[in-house]
Amino acid sequence: MSSPQIRPTDATVADLGEFGLISAVADVVARTAPGTDVLVGPGDDAAVMRVRSGHVVVSTDVLVEGRHFRRDWAEAVDVGHRAAAQNISDVNAMGGRAQWLTVSLAMPADLPAAWALDFTRGFATECAAVGAGVVGGDLSRADAVVVSVTVIGACTVSPVLRSGAAPGDVLALCGRQGWAAGGLAVLGRGFRSPRVLVEAYRRPAPPYDAGPQAAQAGATAMIDVSDGLLAEAGHLAVASGVSIDVSTGSFEVPEPLLAVGAATGADPLQFILAGGDDHSLLATFPAGAALPEGWVRIGTVGSAPVEGEPAVTVDGAPYDGPTGWTHF
Amino acid sequence: MSSPQIRPTDATVADLGEFGLISAVADVVARTAPGTDVLVGPGDDAAVMRVRSGHVVVSTDVLVEGRHFRRDWAEAVDVGHRAAAQNISDVNAMGGRAQWLTVSLAMPADLPAAWALDFTRGFATECAAVGAGVVGGDLSRADAVVVSVTVIGACTVSPVLRSGAAPGDVLALCGRQGWAAGGLAVLGRGFRSPRVLVEAYRRPAPPYDAGPQAAQAGATAMIDVSDGLLAEAGHLAVASGVSIDVSTGSFEVPEPLLAVGAATGADPLQFILAGGDDHSLLATFPAGAALPEGWVRIGTVGSAPVEGEPAVTVDGAPYDGPTGWTHF
Repeated sequence: MSSPQIRPTDATVADLGEFGLISAVADVVARTAPGTDVLVGPGDDAAVMRVRSGHVVVSTDVLVEGRHFRRDWAEAVDVGHRAAAQNISDVNAMGGRAQWLTVSLAMPADLPAAWALDFTRGFATECAAVGAGVVGGDLSRADAVVVSVTVIGACTVSPVLRSGAAPGDVLALCGRQGWAAGGLAVLGRGFRSPRVLVEAYRRPAPPYDAGPQAAQAGATAMIDVSDGLLAEAGHLAVASGVSIDVSTGSFEVPEPLLAVGAATGADPLQFILAGGDDHSLLATFPAGAALPEGWVRIGTVGSAPVEGEPAVTVDGAPYDGPTGWTHF
Repeated sequence: MSSPQIRPTDATVADLGEFGLISAVADVVARTAPGTDVLVGPGDDAAVMRVRSGHVVVSTDVLVEGRHFRRDWAEAVDVGHRAAAQNISDVNAMGGRAQWLTVSLAMPADLPAAWALDFTRGFATECAAVGAGVVGGDLSRADAVVVSVTVIGACTVSPVLRSGAAPGDVLALCGRQGWAAGGLAVLGRGFRSPRVLVEAYRRPAPPYDAGPQAAQAGATAMIDVSDGLLAEAGHLAVASGVSIDVSTGSFEVPEPLLAVGAATGADPLQFILAGGDDHSLLATFPAGAALPEGWVRIGTVGSAPVEGEPAVTVDGAPYDGPTGWTHF
């Protein structure tokens, strides 16, 4: 359905009304690639998709304004990209590829309609970039913007779980790590540069191909770094019943993080060890395996920690700095 | 993982902390039936499920505190049942059956942890009642409770869309209709009876088997009544390019609605025509088709309305009362 109300400059979502907004959002979605194997798209009680792989991989995430994003720190289109990216990344971390996504928006009545439409455009564009389609959603009023996303995908080989790491494996990382945390630190101090870090925070660039490639290469366990590298290493260690040691010497601290460290007095390595939101991938591989392109060895897997010892160490010693982000 | 912190009497979600709450919620889910064909359940980056039907049917909904439910009007367990029911119903309205659900909870830090756990128990119990399992979710902090649900299911015959109604078809309804709206009216006036209506509002009882049965019986179009009978009839009419006439003489107004009408001065028929939240099913069937058990003929399908005429009429005439609920 076409609508003359697309991109109203001043209109709020309440001005458009529920069905006007649904129509405008649907228009935005319809102007991006629909994804493959969609038998019934958005607009009915449910969407229907053909499944060729015999299985589905499903994950869901919620983003809350003021908690996961701030409207004054990121454009709507970037929030849309990020909402899609962090969910696509969860399928990636199983060694799979995203195929279809749903997205719900709860939002204040006085939210500019352009925000909702720009968000949708960013979301749908990020999906289309990996060949995935937006197949459904819901809209409602709320006091703050709350975005809920569910992604459905599939693996070509067996899914790589968090629980498969074994002593003797190597720990490896793929993708930018610490950049988004550096950008967040910059924004939190009221600055807008280094711009490359701010952009990394606003719109992550997860290594989407790296998940399936790692699965193919025999990764034994995998997780995406959304909450902090050491925190995610801890999830792998606990799920696998192993210990993990991270070698800080493996990291080449990128120049922009050095600059932020110098300006703020923070240890730039902290952004790497405790930062999330880049959606880099952390995986373990058998000791002899050749790491796929883009993966860097950053640590080792040992036997289960003795009672009272930490599951994750840094350079062989307990680590008492922050390890990641908590939501309560 | 077991946790000694289950059902703390006074603890808030912040007291439990993110991982304590995740663990407690996961415990509640683990104590209900997991659903079938779940290869990887909650707790990894994504869940993995075997698909035997060659397709998936997917729908998503968001429920916002103060908008879709009030914590002083319904117990947490009821909100959980309702959140699951309204999503399962969307798959039902395609003629399918729900198999797997995800649920996200954004909530204030001072929310009693018991609320989150009771909600989860209601949600998981409603899923288990139809043989579906909870396979994933997310938790976050927010200023109000926002619940997001996605359901995945499958059809045994072709999905029944909104767009298949043809002139000459009959319009039929299955399930309680108007009860929840009557209950809401009662609660809105500060009363708690008739109890059967209040209960119908708090915990709907959608006719879950009726969708697949209607599909099997040759239903040409179908929708679930979440926002109002006439509003949903309008969606069917527009999607199918037909007109629909609803005969009020088809409805036997149930005694509790008559009682509410008498007490409030409202026309009890209005609850039936404009009420939502019961998740009854509205479908069209070919004129000669035998309606499956539980379905009642309530109207007829005619040719497309002439420009300027309403797509839905009541007893052959335009209707100027409320037709349903809008979200902005």
